[in-house]
Amino acid sequence: MYSNTKNSFPLLTDLYQLTMAYGYWRTGLADKESVFHLFFRNKPFNGGFTIAAGLSSVIAFINNFQYDKSDIDYLSTLTGDNGTPLFEKTFLEYLGRLEFSCQVDAVPEGTVVFPYEPMVRVQGPIIQCQLLETPLLNMINFPSLIATKAARICIAAAGESVLEFGLRRAQGPDGAMTASRAAYIGGCHATSNVLAGKCFGIPVKGTQAHSWVMIFDDELEAFQKYAEAMPHNCVLLVDTYDTLEGVKKAIVAGKWLEQRGGRLSGIRLDSGDLAYLSIEARKMLDDAGMYDTKIVASNDLDEVIIAELKNQNAQITVWGVGTSLVTAKDHPALDGVYKLSAVRNIGEKWEYKIKLSEQMTKISNPGIQQVKRYYNTGENVADVLYDVHTDLSAGCTIVDPIDPTRCKNIASDLESHDLLVPIFRNGIQVYEEPLLNSIRENTRNELQGFHQGIKRFVNPHQYVVGMEKTLYDNKINLIKSVRKKNKQLNRKLLCETTVCTVEVVD
Amino acid sequence: MYSNTKNSFPLLTDLYQLTMAYGYWRTGLADKESVFHLFFRNKPFNGGFTIAAGLSSVIAFINNFQYDKSDIDYLSTLTGDNGTPLFEKTFLEYLGRLEFSCQVDAVPEGTVVFPYEPMVRVQGPIIQCQLLETPLLNMINFPSLIATKAARICIAAAGESVLEFGLRRAQGPDGAMTASRAAYIGGCHATSNVLAGKCFGIPVKGTQAHSWVMIFDDELEAFQKYAEAMPHNCVLLVDTYDTLEGVKKAIVAGKWLEQRGGRLSGIRLDSGDLAYLSIEARKMLDDAGMYDTKIVASNDLDEVIIAELKNQNAQITVWGVGTSLVTAKDHPALDGVYKLSAVRNIGEKWEYKIKLSEQMTKISNPGIQQVKRYYNTGENVADVLYDVHTDLSAGCTIVDPIDPTRCKNIASDLESHDLLVPIFRNGIQVYEEPLLNSIRENTRNELQGFHQGIKRFVNPHQYVVGMEKTLYDNKINLIKSVRKKNKQLNRKLLCETTVCTVEVVD
Repeated sequence: MYSNTKNSFPLLTDLYQLTMAYGYWRTGLADKESVFHLFFRNKPFNGGFTIAAGLSSVIAFINNFQYDKSDIDYLSTLTGDNGTPLFEKTFLEYLGRLEFSCQVDAVPEGTVVFPYEPMVRVQGPIIQCQLLETPLLNMINFPSLIATKAARICIAAAGESVLEFGLRRAQGPDGAMTASRAAYIGGCHATSNVLAGKCFGIPVKGTQAHSWVMIFDDELEAFQKYAEAMPHNCVLLVDTYDTLEGVKKAIVAGKWLEQRGGRLSGIRLDSGDLAYLSIEARKMLDDAGMYDTKIVASNDLDEVIIAELKNQNAQITVWGVGTSLVTAKDHPALDGVYKLSAVRNIGEKWEYKIKLSEQMTKISNPGIQQVKRYYNTGENVADVLYDVHTDLSAGCTIVDPIDPTRCKNIASDLESHDLLVPIFRNGIQVYEEPLLNSIRENTRNELQGFHQGIKRFVNPHQYVVGMEKTLYDNKINLIKSVRKKNKQLNRKLLCETTVCTVEVVD
Repeated sequence: MYSNTKNSFPLLTDLYQLTMAYGYWRTGLADKESVFHLFFRNKPFNGGFTIAAGLSSVIAFINNFQYDKSDIDYLSTLTGDNGTPLFEKTFLEYLGRLEFSCQVDAVPEGTVVFPYEPMVRVQGPIIQCQLLETPLLNMINFPSLIATKAARICIAAAGESVLEFGLRRAQGPDGAMTASRAAYIGGCHATSNVLAGKCFGIPVKGTQAHSWVMIFDDELEAFQKYAEAMPHNCVLLVDTYDTLEGVKKAIVAGKWLEQRGGRLSGIRLDSGDLAYLSIEARKMLDDAGMYDTKIVASNDLDEVIIAELKNQNAQITVWGVGTSLVTAKDHPALDGVYKLSAVRNIGEKWEYKIKLSEQMTKISNPGIQQVKRYYNTGENVADVLYDVHTDLSAGCTIVDPIDPTRCKNIASDLESHDLLVPIFRNGIQVYEEPLLNSIRENTRNELQGFHQGIKRFVNPHQYVVGMEKTLYDNKINLIKSVRKKNKQLNRKLLCETTVCTVEVVD
């Protein structure tokens, strides 16, 4: 799998990153210092929060970043429209020697984040920053999406076990591995994916398939044979022929197993009315004295269906989720982007940059950004997006970036911490990666710091995320000045274009 | 990437495949010969067809299938509820020695397939068939979904270039690689993913990002510098500040480039009203004599939006598609399943199997299945699902499996061929894999064999797929006999359960 490999694969990028890199190199801009931020604009699933994930793959990618001879050879075969090579040999030699020297700051995996908050900030030679764009987006967007979906499903399951079963519907082998890891970060208790168990140390769980039951002439025999093989991990799938008849047979097999020193761990329902069937099955199991036998359910479950089943008093205590989780079925992509926000020549002052758009929500934020999260007696009250050159020690005023008539003062005596932490300094990793279980624990703690309202599925409460006023004012001034300058340039161009047209007529 | 690696990763499977494998081994059933079919039930995107893809990964997976020491060591650490090992040591040693010996038949990549038609058939020792279930589903479901989506998008583009741009939103690195390959099979002309170019030989294409334009003080300067670096691959992104002003500047830069021996290959629109903007941009380019300069468009495109833009006479000739393609956004999973259909002891007769369900559409088909496609003067007229033991040389009668009152006779003089071809015999690959370009060509030819109606996006025509009557009758008889037998067994069980309950009371 690529996502946690020790191999280098710098060509996992869009071609335009390389053509731009070549352009920067040719134009003498390659070493111009720049700042880029990776952020998203829309909360997935119409939800109230997003869980950051994927940093671990980013760190592995950067640590192993190196073009090898086969990469350079391949790039030298690429040609333009007229068959001439796309890249000069000297540039390819430069790429072959390229060593990563950027500063990278990022929010740790498991952090709750909101739209426009940078999840990763990269500062360094523009050629390097540019070459990181696509792989960073690839490695952050999808895991963050799946960790968020998993967190929502675990919230619906309200502390009960959630098993990730998605391997067969995931996006290829590595899509599945990435999904299993992210689902665990989001709060899932185990995966069915054995390779994810081996590589990441995630607990693995499994029951049995219909084929096991079908191969025997008799469902009871199938159950007994399985119980014999798995006396201490015996979960029987009861819906191959008729679910409640299957439950009866599972009880018989369970009693038979008890007499042999084993125990029926659970039964699994995989079709039909899961509320009704689980209630009936629970009664039957309890009547047989099998109070500890769990009821596992699967069949296209997601957070909405789980919440609804619980509302109907379904007696399910283990939830198997597959397709909806690993494909994030109702919102299959996080819209993360990576935008330039500042440049400078070495030793000079920063020049802040924005990308304009007719929609205010699509105009990027300038500067070198950090997020400070404020809290009061354990509950988070606001996030402030600010420029690292601004001192917040005396408190600050924040502006709602969508509705600037809404402002709020943040007192200086509130507790707070910065979300972005140093990951690389001058290309050297300075961040000690937490173990996967700590990341999962971090997600749980992070979510506990927020009001229940933001964790609702329907019309969640909007947590306060404001822009610190100086940054906001800088942005507005920059928008105005870029628009003004463009108008002037366009007027100038009008003359030039006219001249140009005359030339064509000639 | 896992999907085309030479490495073995047999643990890429659901745990229950291994617990069942252990069960088969313990019960002495491991070598019982069985037949499984991989098929799907619902056409994705409410469409009329599906393109098979992913076989190449399956072949690589099977050829490299071997448990190594680290796999066995990991499996030996797994425990049941009470902390005892899940698997006996002797079983793990058996796994370590396991060599693949099955017969595998499959439809070649690029084949048009329909619900219930087997895409892969595996015949061999049940333990091996079972262990292949999850990896086969993982490696067929997703690529087939993406190849289908790509084919739809290419149909909408009606012969114009479609570029796959999805890397940044794909499901991790390998999700992206799998998607790039499948998109090419489906008909895309190129990818932005350079690693997919290197590994699969897919043409790579790219333009430039907003960051390139933003780093210069002036958009025209940005265009000229890029044109200078890429005189023969110059596609300029014109919407950083104001799209039509950007087009003017691109024209100036293009003229400037022409004077230097280059050529403006294209401009790219990435926001706003793509119909209006492309029409205006085309006029401006034509007025400047730049008839050959292409207009590339991107921004959350899919087949429906492309078709709609073409209806509005949009002057776009190159379509960049990303998120919607690589995540199959409106239908993010193919519902492929893998079902047991026959078993026999070595040297004995086949016993056919089905999985029952209260819904007829969810009852699996029995037997050892093949699909014969009939055609008449180049156009396909019907597919027939039949058992390989049935002779169709004198024609046949087919039954609609959903509505059995609908039957149809297939004349023996129609041309036909079988869709499934031999891939492995006794574990040895007997299939010569076509080159990727031939697979892509196969998709195109396959689609040409079908009536336009099945390629519509809205209410597509339903192509005729029938069950050969003997197979259908066998299925119905099997359903009846399984239901009858279960009732008898349930009555018997009722007595046993009563006894059992008495025991508990004791």
